[in-house]
This record gives sequence, C-alpha cells and structure tokens, in this order.
Amino acid sequence: MALPDDWKELEAVKQLKYKYLRCLDQKRWEEIATLFTADATSAYSDGKYSYEGRDAIVKFLVESMGADSFLSSHRVHHPEIVFTSAKTATGVWALEDTVIEERFGITIEGAGFYRDEYVKQDGAWKIQHTGYERTFEQMSARKDIPSLKLTHKAKDA
Amino acid sequence: MALPDDWKELEAVKQLKYKYLRCLDQKRWEEIATLFTADATSAYSDGKYSYEGRDAIVKFLVESMGADSFLSSHRVHHPEIVFTSAKTATGVWALEDTVIEERFGITIEGAGFYRDEYVKQDGAWKIQHTGYERTFEQMSARKDIPSLKLTHKAKDA
Amino acid sequence: MALPDDWKELEAVKQLKYKYLRCLDQKRWEEIATLFTADATSAYSDGKYSYEGRDAIVKFLVESMGADSFLSSHRVHHPEIVFTSAKTATGVWALEDTVIEERFGITIEGAGFYRDEYVKQDGAWKIQHTGYERTFEQMSARKDIPSLKLTHKAKDA
Repeated sequence: MALPDDWKELEAVKQLKYKYLRCLDQKRWEEIATLFTADATSAYSDGKYSYEGRDAIVKFLVESMGADSFLSSHRVHHPEIVFTSAKTATGVWALEDTVIEERFGITIEGAGFYRDEYVKQDGAWKIQHTGYERTFEQMSARKDIPSLKLTHKAKDA
Repeated sequence: MALPDDWKELEAVKQLKYKYLRCLDQKRWEEIATLFTADATSAYSDGKYSYEGRDAIVKFLVESMGADSFLSSHRVHHPEIVFTSAKTATGVWALEDTVIEERFGITIEGAGFYRDEYVKQDGAWKIQHTGYERTFEQMSARKDIPSLKLTHKAKDA
Repeated sequence: MALPDDWKELEAVKQLKYKYLRCLDQKRWEEIATLFTADATSAYSDGKYSYEGRDAIVKFLVESMGADSFLSSHRVHHPEIVFTSAKTATGVWALEDTVIEERFGITIEGAGFYRDEYVKQDGAWKIQHTGYERTFEQMSARKDIPSLKLTHKAKDA
C-alpha cells in the first residue's frame, strides 16, 4: 500500500514531522521527546550523529541546539510518504536549514534529504527513525560581511 | 474536530494561504484584498505591524511592499491546520522570507512562525487573522559583497 | 473540476513534482526521464530555456546541471493544483533555488513561480509542460566572502 485509504493518516504523519521541526527551532525539548518512540534511532548528517533511543537523541539535540545564541530555521519540503502497512510508513523529505551561532559568529546553510520511518503506537504516529544525507553544507564567518546584523530574535529563544 | 471530514476543506485553506503569499510577491493587491474578511486583523512581525480591517491591512502591504525596487520571496511550510468547527480553522506555518530592496541596497532574510485564523464565508475560506513571530531576522548592505548582482527581475514587478 | 473526487489523485501529482525535483538535485537523469511525457515541453527561466520533447529537456538538464561541481537545492512550495479533467491538471508552485558552482566559484540564488501541466497516461501522472518565471535571481562570487567554504558534499554528487 503506497497511500492509506484514509487521507487523515497521511496528514497525521506530515503534521508529526512539522511539529518535530517547529519544536527544534523553538527549543521545545520536552514536547519533542513525545514525538519519538522509546527505541527510536537517528542518523543525522550522513550518519555522523547516530544515536539509539529517544533519550540519547533528545540529549544530542539539546546539547547541539539548546544555546540561546543558536538560532535556526529547519524546513522540510517535498514529502514522499509511503505507507508500508496500516501502522508503518517511510518518508523522504527535502531539507534546507540555516543556523546562526552568535557566540561563534558563524552562519551555516545546508541542503539534503531526510529518510524517516514512522510507526503508529496507541493511536498516535511517532518517529521510529530519522536521518538525512547532505547535498551540500557551507559555513562562513559573519564578520566577513561587516554590515550583517541581527535585526530580530525570538523573545523566548 | 482537528481535521474535517472532507479533505477538500483542508486543501481549500492551504490554497488560500498559498494564493495570499503569491499575491504578496507578485504585487497583486486587488486580488489579495479578496482573501481577507472585511474585519480581518493582522499582527505581522511580532505584532509590530498590527492593523484592523481588510483595508488597513492591504494599505500597509502596498505601502511597505509596493515599490518596483522591492523584490521578495515569502514562503511558508509545515502547515499545522486545526479545524475548530466546520467553518473556522487555525493554522500554524513556518515562514522564511527574503527581501531585496534595490533602492536602499539591502537584503533582509528572516524565519518565523505564522499563527492564522480562517473562516468560511459564503462558501469561500477567508483570512480572519494573520500574524507571525520571528525566530530571527537579519539585514545586510549588498555593497559588502562587491560581486553581488541581480541577474533577473520579474518583468511585471 | 478544481479538485478531483479522489484525494490520491492530487497526492500523486504532488509526488510527481517532488520526485522530479529530487532527481534534479541528486542527478538521477534516467529516473527523471520517466517523469515526462514523450512530447513534453519546457520553458525554464522565463522561456529562456525552452525545449520540445522529453529527450531535448533531459539533454538540457544533464548539460546544465550534470557536473560534479554543480551543487543545487531546488525547492517548490505552495501547490495550487487545478484538475481540468480526470486525466489533466495544471499546477502553480513557488520556487526557491540555490546553486553552487565550484568550478566557477559562484553562488546563484533565485525565486519564481512554476506553471506546469500534467497528464495521466497508463495510470501514471506525467509532466506535459513545465516552466517558471523569475521574481528575482542574483549571483555572487564566492571569494567575496573569504571564509565561505563547503563543509559537506554529497558522496554521489
């Protein structure tokens, strides 16, 4: 089955991913933990950041993205979701992300493709596996553009 | 009701938002006015640009984005749409926008999250409220990158 | 008919476009050829790159984007899909694309709007026509930002 009979199942998988990404950029770490299965695995950045278990994944996210000086925009596009059963699905997504690290004075911009696995547990879709491979990633020092300045920051970031 | 029974209702809300954003970047001000309710409200940029009434909102949009020298790409992603009744819905969207102002020689890039309210009137979904909060926004002078040049502009922009 | 009775038809058109864009950035030229009708036409970049026939289009894509030094992120958003019959549809999409050409040391960034036509043949949706008009496009020499460097490249790019 490529697509489920009920369109709401597909929409639920998409909204799971959207909430995950919003929680990342809004630093909602307690909420993001609820989106993974307990034994979820990750393979971020071509497997460079591979973790086993929800707790290990969330610990990595907090440690790498938790600082107030870390401002990010992670956006995904082009969902190619395939249902492999009524309660399991895979998803390919196109990623673009921008990170500003004020402490280090750098900007990172990248593109790539996520390959996820989802599972429905107790009526709710969860992330069983997530990871992406880079098409490219680039970094620059913000001082190289002398006029570049932040004109707005999230109040609660 | 989180999702409506009819998937076309959800699709109609999404296409309303897509048309709104296309009209912004294509400067279709007469068409954009038709997408708001008469008593719509806005709270753009963390409430900095708050207006009451369709006419006041559209006046703001024309005055701030109407110039031929103002080139923009407003893109939204990650729709988390919730139907609160058969004729009302809320929407959270991830925003990324790039603005080039040739007159002032600046580029502005930002990210944030929209929180909208929609209502169905006479069979058509309309924007009742729209606004967003910034995750970050940055600005730079284009002359800091000496080789940076526009290679293409919309014919009708 | 603006929307089809079956939501899976709309989803199939969207996934066709998503696969097309993924194949572009992953340089999957044999796979991308299967997504066009034999007599498909293109009008990329305001018609500057207009071709007739699948073979001519794919030849252009390979010649312009095939080099290992050509790194790209083509992303589309805001699908406004209209079904004109059970087996034909049109689509407007918002485009953003970033291209890094290492050989020439340049970055190109652009925004615009696609206008596509799709047709269902032997049970599969295909691209009958594709093209886009630019809102803006800009180019810069990467050496103008001395610290700018690629930190990651696709293994198979």
